[in-house]
Amino acid sequence: MNFIYLDNNATTAIDPRVFQTMVQELKEPPSNPSSVHTLGKNAKQRLIHAKLKISSFFKAKPEEIICTSGGTESINLFLRGLDSGHIITTAIDHSSVYKTIQTLEKKGLQATYLPVGPWGAPLKEHIEAAIRPNTQALVFSAANAETGVKLEIEAIGDIAQKYDIPLFIDAIAWIGKEPFPMHPAITAIAVAGHKFHGPKGVGILFVKSSFKLPPLLTGGNQEYQKRAGTENLAAIVGLAKAFDILKEEQTTITQHLSDLRFHFEHNLQKLLPDLQINGEGPRIANTSNLAFPGIDGETLLIQLDRLGIYASHGSACASGSLEPSRVLTHMGIPHKIAASSLRFSIGKFNTKEEIDRAIDIIASTVQKLS
Amino acid sequence: MNFIYLDNNATTAIDPRVFQTMVQELKEPPSNPSSVHTLGKNAKQRLIHAKLKISSFFKAKPEEIICTSGGTESINLFLRGLDSGHIITTAIDHSSVYKTIQTLEKKGLQATYLPVGPWGAPLKEHIEAAIRPNTQALVFSAANAETGVKLEIEAIGDIAQKYDIPLFIDAIAWIGKEPFPMHPAITAIAVAGHKFHGPKGVGILFVKSSFKLPPLLTGGNQEYQKRAGTENLAAIVGLAKAFDILKEEQTTITQHLSDLRFHFEHNLQKLLPDLQINGEGPRIANTSNLAFPGIDGETLLIQLDRLGIYASHGSACASGSLEPSRVLTHMGIPHKIAASSLRFSIGKFNTKEEIDRAIDIIASTVQKLS
Repeated sequence: MNFIYLDNNATTAIDPRVFQTMVQELKEPPSNPSSVHTLGKNAKQRLIHAKLKISSFFKAKPEEIICTSGGTESINLFLRGLDSGHIITTAIDHSSVYKTIQTLEKKGLQATYLPVGPWGAPLKEHIEAAIRPNTQALVFSAANAETGVKLEIEAIGDIAQKYDIPLFIDAIAWIGKEPFPMHPAITAIAVAGHKFHGPKGVGILFVKSSFKLPPLLTGGNQEYQKRAGTENLAAIVGLAKAFDILKEEQTTITQHLSDLRFHFEHNLQKLLPDLQINGEGPRIANTSNLAFPGIDGETLLIQLDRLGIYASHGSACASGSLEPSRVLTHMGIPHKIAASSLRFSIGKFNTKEEIDRAIDIIASTVQKLS
Repeated sequence: MNFIYLDNNATTAIDPRVFQTMVQELKEPPSNPSSVHTLGKNAKQRLIHAKLKISSFFKAKPEEIICTSGGTESINLFLRGLDSGHIITTAIDHSSVYKTIQTLEKKGLQATYLPVGPWGAPLKEHIEAAIRPNTQALVFSAANAETGVKLEIEAIGDIAQKYDIPLFIDAIAWIGKEPFPMHPAITAIAVAGHKFHGPKGVGILFVKSSFKLPPLLTGGNQEYQKRAGTENLAAIVGLAKAFDILKEEQTTITQHLSDLRFHFEHNLQKLLPDLQINGEGPRIANTSNLAFPGIDGETLLIQLDRLGIYASHGSACASGSLEPSRVLTHMGIPHKIAASSLRFSIGKFNTKEEIDRAIDIIASTVQKLS
């Protein structure tokens, strides 16, 4: 089927080179890196090789990279290791951050949720003003998964440094779209493989070796005793390959994504003058969260699906009843506008021809529904 | 290299049919089962199909199967969901059980570690005697990973039923070796894919829907809100295939394993009359934990590795100094005997020719070292 996939913030097509790397590992003889015999030692070598590739991406030490089962585990690993002190975060973070913090609040964690407004990201002034003597972490996403609005990582890194407070960055919606600004004050970073053409079921938590992190999964001594369980070697070597590809190709990818996104938004706005872009702050290269005033977003999404355009609705379907997007709502966007919004997230495999076709189909569908 | 792999309790060779199933899934277009468009719905269908295969293996409802990143996560998910009441367990369980319980004890959990003696498994009389008014779970492995000694699941299931206490079974060293006796009193079961020719990085926790289990990973609504995170679809469909294969072939596999194990032990004992088998209780079909009195197990393991026989030592190397196996020590096996012991674990792909060759090589190596 000749579809156009514009839901790359949900998941991405695996890069053929990542696929090949995984297949090669899956063809290896039985390999448990904890086994002391030759097959185990060979597996351990491949694991170390992969770890070195990933750690060099973050200019980190290999022991600062913990391989997990994905972004959600990386986030839970960091957050559930916190004491019952105070953290500063927002109400527009991904559910793996937001719901976990809400769970921990019931156990005594104190959380300040900063306002973000139509800008779509917390402001450094608000962060500084919210710091308390017992603030133990700043918890923010580098780029919002729904709107793409970016955090001022440099400025907020400086605040973390000034007050000596650990800064945790959910970089899941950032990595693969733009080069990551590795501020020295960042204590921990969560990344998910499948969001940048890597494997599903694997992610990493970069965490500084100076930071005391209790494990969430206990048992064997894998991952420097910070994450027990036999290593998912095929996924880890695949993830390392995905990072290697980024090292070489990130600049080109970013240019491609921002060219396509500009082309997409610019031409769609010409055809649909009512179109609004959600998120006033600077956005990561690939994400367009667009409001189509007067249109029901759910209906538009279904129509586009039928026409082979795959996007996502800025709202979650909870027990059958549609609720407006938590992110857009907390940005102060009116319910009706939020309900008219769709997220289009471009990927490196999208082409200009696809974007041209998408513009035509979206514009004509919106015009029909108007 | 023409090696003989006898470390199938560490990990197993992936079944070619599982490999093919995974490769097929990895070739699918971008697939997040939570996406509402056609690709997402198709992915959801494949996920449901896999879940049905797995749940039917356990004669369970699909919502009673939680897919995790492996055995360690399944075990942590169950144990970390317990209150600070009392549990009954042993000191010979796998580190993912033992170390997790030790961690939880520091937070107030009360644990009784039952003696197992040279038999190698807890006795039902001891279990019954250890029950307290606040006993909230019985936590045992179906088969010990080091010795293969089996739990009396039927009898212990009856005790759990009589006292109405949840029974948690770590079945990681059992599944794939013998048909699993699914006692109705079992509340939860942990399984790891890569221990029975399935994928690494995936496991399941079967948990009765009547049992209240708080999630360990929070975020999205995946896995019936019991385990957040984008599903590792290739691994899950691969795991389902591995269970499907067992449904068809378990009887044949069990016969094959026990034939080879009998042949192995019987002939090795003829050549090495001093040979002792660790674990007096009935053992799962594939595992031989053998003591070679007067021989240093570590030296033997290294010699065998050079000769292409891959087994494992019944001891863990902690910070450079060799410590005797916790399992064998807690069985009351003398330090010297424990240090002379190796574990040979047979798999379905081993052949009679391999076992014959292994017998010759092991016997001659032991004779040279004597």
